[in-house]
Amino acid sequence: MRSAFYISDGTAITAEVFGHALLSLFTVEFKHQTVPFVETEQQAKDVLNKISESFQESGQRPLVFYTIVNTEIRKMISKSVGINYNFLDQFVAPLEKALGVYSMPEKHRTHSIHEKTYDIRIDAVNYALANDDGSNIKDYNEADIILCGVSRSGKTPTSLYLALQYGIKAANYPFTEEDMGDVLKLPPALKRFKKKLFGLTIMAERLHQIRSERRANSRYASMQQCRMELREVENLYRKEKIPFLNSTKFSIEEMSAKILAQTGLQRRKY
Amino acid sequence: MRSAFYISDGTAITAEVFGHALLSLFTVEFKHQTVPFVETEQQAKDVLNKISESFQESGQRPLVFYTIVNTEIRKMISKSVGINYNFLDQFVAPLEKALGVYSMPEKHRTHSIHEKTYDIRIDAVNYALANDDGSNIKDYNEADIILCGVSRSGKTPTSLYLALQYGIKAANYPFTEEDMGDVLKLPPALKRFKKKLFGLTIMAERLHQIRSERRANSRYASMQQCRMELREVENLYRKEKIPFLNSTKFSIEEMSAKILAQTGLQRRKY
Repeated sequence: MRSAFYISDGTAITAEVFGHALLSLFTVEFKHQTVPFVETEQQAKDVLNKISESFQESGQRPLVFYTIVNTEIRKMISKSVGINYNFLDQFVAPLEKALGVYSMPEKHRTHSIHEKTYDIRIDAVNYALANDDGSNIKDYNEADIILCGVSRSGKTPTSLYLALQYGIKAANYPFTEEDMGDVLKLPPALKRFKKKLFGLTIMAERLHQIRSERRANSRYASMQQCRMELREVENLYRKEKIPFLNSTKFSIEEMSAKILAQTGLQRRKY
Repeated sequence: MRSAFYISDGTAITAEVFGHALLSLFTVEFKHQTVPFVETEQQAKDVLNKISESFQESGQRPLVFYTIVNTEIRKMISKSVGINYNFLDQFVAPLEKALGVYSMPEKHRTHSIHEKTYDIRIDAVNYALANDDGSNIKDYNEADIILCGVSRSGKTPTSLYLALQYGIKAANYPFTEEDMGDVLKLPPALKRFKKKLFGLTIMAERLHQIRSERRANSRYASMQQCRMELREVENLYRKEKIPFLNSTKFSIEEMSAKILAQTGLQRRKY
């Protein structure tokens, strides 16, 4: 199998994202290898050897995606036996022209620590954890958004992603049987914060499957119970005009991006 | 201020990552605007209007980074009044030549749901939450890695990032005063899993600052206490040959990438 290398003197996240986006256009399988923090000549030599070995083993020239700030290291990697994509470089000159200023590559380091947004994200993660699963309704005034939905509809991973990726404080509230009663009404704890609410829902079959993995053959996991709960929450969302999304066919990234787009919520980290 | 637009008929994460990496080479400030899920002609028209308005307001042509699968929508956006970077496109033809196959753009959708890795990530997030902060030492046999360190040294956000981004099951264990005694020894719960341990440490000044935000003027937050705890854990790491990292100057992304690189741990999602 042909190898794809993602190399950087930083995290290599940029090289990975770009390389994956490009390779996903092809229905070919690759062996992915990320090599971050290549900061010394020796480390660069080691990577070049890995690339050569991979070429010899597979008989196919590896694809090499890289972003490297250090000029010497960059030059070394650019001479690998692979097919090299230094994809940032060819956009720099046109962008310099468009902006009318020179680039400052030595300042370049995405995904590294920026004190300000770093603390914001850690605070947001701590907030999401402290306000997960309806555990702490007294701090909802601090929330940027309150995700609500039935148990196992995707609230927790989405809250954490919003916190880690965007620095958004997302609480989440699970509608329980207690809330359901005869007809699900907006729980008193949420009424004051109605404008912050965002509903999640999910297909009954998928919910049944997820819950069955947790508690097989329970009433909690039964199709009947799943259908009933989802009907109630969707009715509530419509009645109370709470914006909502069905998480069944979306990734965590898609859910989060859709929530931002739909609510106009401002992220704290770009 | 000049605007930078990140546009896609998906999450726009690829456009953002590429655009940010490129713009971070310049010491110029931009107004960032992400517009994900541009799927209809009307939505494309709305974006084109936004770009035109931004041009009129600022007098500077906005930068437009986009990845769009739909041909019609892509054509529309490529005619914006901004400076357009369809950065994937120019790499496709050379890559087709290198691979000897045509690209299948209609199959292209990174950051969308892939059932298999999706479940792996959700499982990993649930595992990280259930095994956060030493709460559940009985499931360490399931862990891919066990992060250890003193309170507030960065264990929880790192565990969650490893889970969300890579599908890695990371437990975390906080060394407490009980563990310290006269000299910190490896707690019995961790002995069996020594090969899975990865230590975090942090500079005393930074730890003091973080703890002071939580409990000002407490013994817990005092410089003396912070110094003592950090000295003990670092001695333990060295004595027991536990690999460790100082989190003070690294982002969550950098910590996670360094941990993968240092341990050789295989991620479950690429």
